[in-house]
Amino acid sequence: MAGRDLTRAAAEALDAADPLAGFRERFAIADEQLIYLDGNSLGRLPLATRDRLAALAAEWGERLVSGWHDWIDAPRRAGDLVADLVGARPGEVVVCDSTTVNLYKLCSAALDARGHGTLATDRDNFPTDRYVLEGLADQRGCALEILESPGVLPDALIVLSHVDYRSGALADMAAVTDAARRVGSTVVWDLCHSAGALPVQLRGAGAELAVGCTYKYLNAGPGAPAFLYVAHELHDDLRSPIWGWFGQRDQFAMERDYEPVAGVERFLAGTPTVLAVAAVEEGARVTAEAGTDRLRAKSIAQTELAIALHDAWLAALGFELGTPREPERRGSHVALRHPDAWPINRALIERAAVIPDFRGPDTIRLGVAPLYTRFVDVWDALDRLRALVERGEHREVDAARGRVT
Amino acid sequence: MAGRDLTRAAAEALDAADPLAGFRERFAIADEQLIYLDGNSLGRLPLATRDRLAALAAEWGERLVSGWHDWIDAPRRAGDLVADLVGARPGEVVVCDSTTVNLYKLCSAALDARGHGTLATDRDNFPTDRYVLEGLADQRGCALEILESPGVLPDALIVLSHVDYRSGALADMAAVTDAARRVGSTVVWDLCHSAGALPVQLRGAGAELAVGCTYKYLNAGPGAPAFLYVAHELHDDLRSPIWGWFGQRDQFAMERDYEPVAGVERFLAGTPTVLAVAAVEEGARVTAEAGTDRLRAKSIAQTELAIALHDAWLAALGFELGTPREPERRGSHVALRHPDAWPINRALIERAAVIPDFRGPDTIRLGVAPLYTRFVDVWDALDRLRALVERGEHREVDAARGRVT
Repeated sequence: MAGRDLTRAAAEALDAADPLAGFRERFAIADEQLIYLDGNSLGRLPLATRDRLAALAAEWGERLVSGWHDWIDAPRRAGDLVADLVGARPGEVVVCDSTTVNLYKLCSAALDARGHGTLATDRDNFPTDRYVLEGLADQRGCALEILESPGVLPDALIVLSHVDYRSGALADMAAVTDAARRVGSTVVWDLCHSAGALPVQLRGAGAELAVGCTYKYLNAGPGAPAFLYVAHELHDDLRSPIWGWFGQRDQFAMERDYEPVAGVERFLAGTPTVLAVAAVEEGARVTAEAGTDRLRAKSIAQTELAIALHDAWLAALGFELGTPREPERRGSHVALRHPDAWPINRALIERAAVIPDFRGPDTIRLGVAPLYTRFVDVWDALDRLRALVERGEHREVDAARGRVT
Repeated sequence: MAGRDLTRAAAEALDAADPLAGFRERFAIADEQLIYLDGNSLGRLPLATRDRLAALAAEWGERLVSGWHDWIDAPRRAGDLVADLVGARPGEVVVCDSTTVNLYKLCSAALDARGHGTLATDRDNFPTDRYVLEGLADQRGCALEILESPGVLPDALIVLSHVDYRSGALADMAAVTDAARRVGSTVVWDLCHSAGALPVQLRGAGAELAVGCTYKYLNAGPGAPAFLYVAHELHDDLRSPIWGWFGQRDQFAMERDYEPVAGVERFLAGTPTVLAVAAVEEGARVTAEAGTDRLRAKSIAQTELAIALHDAWLAALGFELGTPREPERRGSHVALRHPDAWPINRALIERAAVIPDFRGPDTIRLGVAPLYTRFVDVWDALDRLRALVERGEHREVDAARGRVT
C-alpha cells in the first residue's frame, strides 16, 4: 500500500468509478450523516422489500386462504434464489426456521446417517453454533471437541464458519472440506457471514451441508428466516429429526404415516412464515442483480482501504488489525482490536454517528456491505474514529457511564 | 331449537344486537360479497397489523441494528399478550418458531425430564402432531400409542388437541389433565383451534405444557410464529433439545458454555422473526380487546345458528352434523359431513363465493371467527350451500374436473 493515495478525494473517485454505486438507491437511507458499518449484523431495508411486504399484507387481506396456492412453494422459491448465490443447484436450498434450528436439524440428521461419535467446532465459532453442538453432545452422549486450530481435523461431525464472525477470517472451504473427507468427517458450513457478501461455491468446494442467515448481507430483515443446504446426493439418506407436515410427502393426504418428501424440502417442519420468506426473496434478488463477483471485488477494495487507513492512522493509537491482511483470507468486515474497544465503540455510536459493532473482549467490527456502503463511508468512519480516539472522547463516554475502562 | 326464527331477518337482528359487531371494521374486507368461513385456517388481516408491519419496516430502515433494543423482548412481549388469552401467567408463554418445532421442543424436554417410555395421541389429531411424535418415538425407541378414545389414558407423554381440527370437538381440558396426572402421564395441549376463539384456562385446568398457532383465530398472518406455554413450576426442570443463543443466560457474554436462562425463554432457539412476531402482538391485542368471553358467547350463538340451519335445510340433502351438539363440547367451527363433501366444497368456493374448507374424507368445515363473522354470513352461507346442493351444481363442478364423486 506504499504510496497509496489516502485522501478523501481518492475515496470519492473510487465511488465515482464504482459500477455498483447505483444500488445504494435501492435501500432505505433515513439519515445520510449516519455511517452504517454493521450490515454484517443487520442489513439495511431494500425498498423493494418494503413494497413487497405491503403488497403481501394486502394479498393476505384479499386472497385469504387461497393465497396459499402461491405461498406454499415460498421456502423452495426463496431457496433457489439463495442457492444461486452460494453455488448450490436449484432444489438444494430451502429458506425456513432460524440458523440455530436449521443447524440442529442438519447436525442431527448427519449424526444419524453417518454415525459420528464426536462433534467438533473451532473455539471461535459463533456461540449459537457451539450451543447446538453442546446440546447434541449432551443428548447423544457424544464427545464435543473444541478445535484450537482448524488445520488438524478429527474424525467427527464438524461445524465451521465460512467467515469468522469476530475476526472476519475466511476459511478455504474446498481445502477444509477435502481434508475432512479424507479423515472420514462431515462438515456443516455456517455461511452467516459469507452468504451475499462473496461468491460462495458450495458445490465447487464439495460441501455437503450448510446453513446460513439472511438478515446480514442478504438484507432480509431482523430475524428473517434462515436457509439450509443439503447436497443433492445426500437427500435420500438424511432425515430431519423434526418430522413436520411441510416435510411430508403428499402433505394434504392427512391420514398417512410420516414419509419425508424426496428433496431438500424434507427439512421443512412447520408452516413457513410467508411474509418473512418473501423478504428473503427480495433480499436475494437484489444481491443476485449486483452479482457476487462484483460485490466481492468492491468489498475487497473497501476492506483494503480500511486496512490502509488503519495502518496510516490507527496503528499509532493502539489499534491492532484483527483480520487477515491477505484479501483472499478475509470476508467483508475488518476487525480492529484495541484495549479500549468497548468505550471506543460506544463513543463512535453516540458521538460520531458511526455504527460499527463490538465483539468481546477487544474487537470493533467494521462491516462493509458493498450493495450500499460507499468508499467515502469507509474513509469518513476511519477519520471519525481517529479523531475521536485522538481527542480521548471514548474516556468521557465511559466515565459518564461509571464504567472502568 | 324448536320454534326458532330461522329467517334472514332474525340473523340481521342478531347482528344489530351484537356487542362485537364493530370489530369487523378493524379487519381488511376486500370483497363484501365473499363469505369467509375459513378463519380457522387463516384469519383475516387486522388493519392494525397492516399498519404495524409498515411501521416496523420503516423502523428497521431507520433504526437499523439499534432497533434490537426494543425487538429483543418481542417473543416474551407477544407471549404475555397470548398468555392472557389462554389463561397463563405472564412469563409462561413465548412466541417463536412454528407449532411443529415448538411441539418437538416441549415433547423432547418432557421425555427427558419425566422419563416416559411411551408417546400417545388420539387417532384424529392433526397430522403434524402425529408426525412429531412418530419422529420422537423413532429416535428414542419409544412406543407410540394411537388412542382410539381419549377417555382411557395410558402412562405416557400425551399430545391432544384442545379442539379437534376436523370435528370441532372441544376436549375437557381440566378433566383430561387431571385423569392424565392420576396415571402419571404428561399432557401437551395443542391449542391451534382454540386460542383466540374461546377462553382457554391453562392454569385453571392444571395444564403443564401447550403449543398453539397464531394464524387462525389470532389473525397473525400466513405462517406467523407459534407460541408455547410451560407452567412456571416446570421451568427449572425442562430443557429445550435445541440449545440456541436466544435461550442462553447472559446471551451476549459469548465465551461461556450453554446455560439456559431461568424462564420460559429457555425454549427460544435462534433469532426471532421480528416483523412476524409483531403481527402476533397485534392479533392478540385486538382479540384481548374483544375479550374471549364475549367472543365465545358470539361463537356459540353462531355455531348454534349454523346447526339449526343444518337441521332445517341440509339434513334432508344428505348432510350429517360432524360436530357435537352441546355448545360446551365444541369449538368455533361446525363440521358438515356429506358423501360429496369434496365437490360441494369446490362448488361453494367457485360458484357461491363462500370459503369453507374441506378435510378428508367427507367433511366441510364452516369456521366462525366472531371478531369479523356476522350472523348474516352464517345464514347466507348455509342458504347458498342449500341452493347449490338442491340444484346439483356440485356435480357440474366435479364433472368439469373429470373426477369421480
